[in-house]
Amino acid sequence: MSEQGQRSISSQNLADFVGVNPWQIRKDFSYFGGFGTRGIGYDIEKLTREIKKILKLDIIQKAVLVGVGNLGSAVLAYPGFRRHGFDIAAVFDNDPKKIGKKIENITVEDVSKLQTLKRRKIYLGIIAVPGDAAQQIADALVKAGVKGILNFSPCYITVPKKVKIITIDIAMDLARLPYYIPTG
Amino acid sequence: MSEQGQRSISSQNLADFVGVNPWQIRKDFSYFGGFGTRGIGYDIEKLTREIKKILKLDIIQKAVLVGVGNLGSAVLAYPGFRRHGFDIAAVFDNDPKKIGKKIENITVEDVSKLQTLKRRKIYLGIIAVPGDAAQQIADALVKAGVKGILNFSPCYITVPKKVKIITIDIAMDLARLPYYIPTG
Repeated sequence: MSEQGQRSISSQNLADFVGVNPWQIRKDFSYFGGFGTRGIGYDIEKLTREIKKILKLDIIQKAVLVGVGNLGSAVLAYPGFRRHGFDIAAVFDNDPKKIGKKIENITVEDVSKLQTLKRRKIYLGIIAVPGDAAQQIADALVKAGVKGILNFSPCYITVPKKVKIITIDIAMDLARLPYYIPTG
Repeated sequence: MSEQGQRSISSQNLADFVGVNPWQIRKDFSYFGGFGTRGIGYDIEKLTREIKKILKLDIIQKAVLVGVGNLGSAVLAYPGFRRHGFDIAAVFDNDPKKIGKKIENITVEDVSKLQTLKRRKIYLGIIAVPGDAAQQIADALVKAGVKGILNFSPCYITVPKKVKIITIDIAMDLARLPYYIPTG
């Protein structure tokens, strides 16, 4: 909306977009001080900035990628990360042929050196290793101080409660489609 | 639960899992005939089978993959698809070096031949091409009769209303994490 030149939006419009009641929108924002003006609504630029701040997306976040096979390489080349404020600051693999090589301008490091993350202040991890190695990598990341993990490995990983993990199962996303396809 | 030997589940338990009211669960299922027994709940095996049928996940669904770069190759090798009843039955690319080659036992076809999908009865498409080519591929898929598209290209694609599209933005998934990470 901002890109289209719109300056403000009402809680009703916002509510329609996300499928909740307008009072819920107003109530939720009020927890953070409330950003709206009665009768006018919300200033879009200001609201975006405030929401980014709440979600901690107003600063560049460093992330580490473990595994530069096909999926890891695709993640590394993905243009969206920079756009959303992420900097993939370290890349690890266990393949001697990859360690020391540069991929997308980052030198691949030995996965046995994950503990160096602690002093480099990298708290976000992306796991793109085969399923049977994922739990071990998650354990090592947690030990190295990582607090949030995006897991692309097709398996269930357990982490301590203080660590947030999001597993992406692309097959589950595909599974949302057949319902909409006419049979026959 | 089924794998853990559990036989039945109450609407209350189901409701707790998905975060809605138990009456909503009962009401939703009642649209499809209702599968529960008062005082006992739902037979897990039967419920799973019925939900799969509703979502059209009870039959093998053929899908086409367009683009076998890093991301496409990762998609092709992803073990989860078969587990969820999907069969990637065709693969296309525009790179002459790839066309005719076998990847994961499927021969890569020339992307200019997408129209053959119609007679092969493939209605699901997966797009894993660079952003600037994605809209064109989506148009070709729709023309070839594809009814559902899973888009991994980092861009917004428009399709006719009758076609269902799901765009996966892995950066947006990563963006869910910083909120949970203690600052400082």
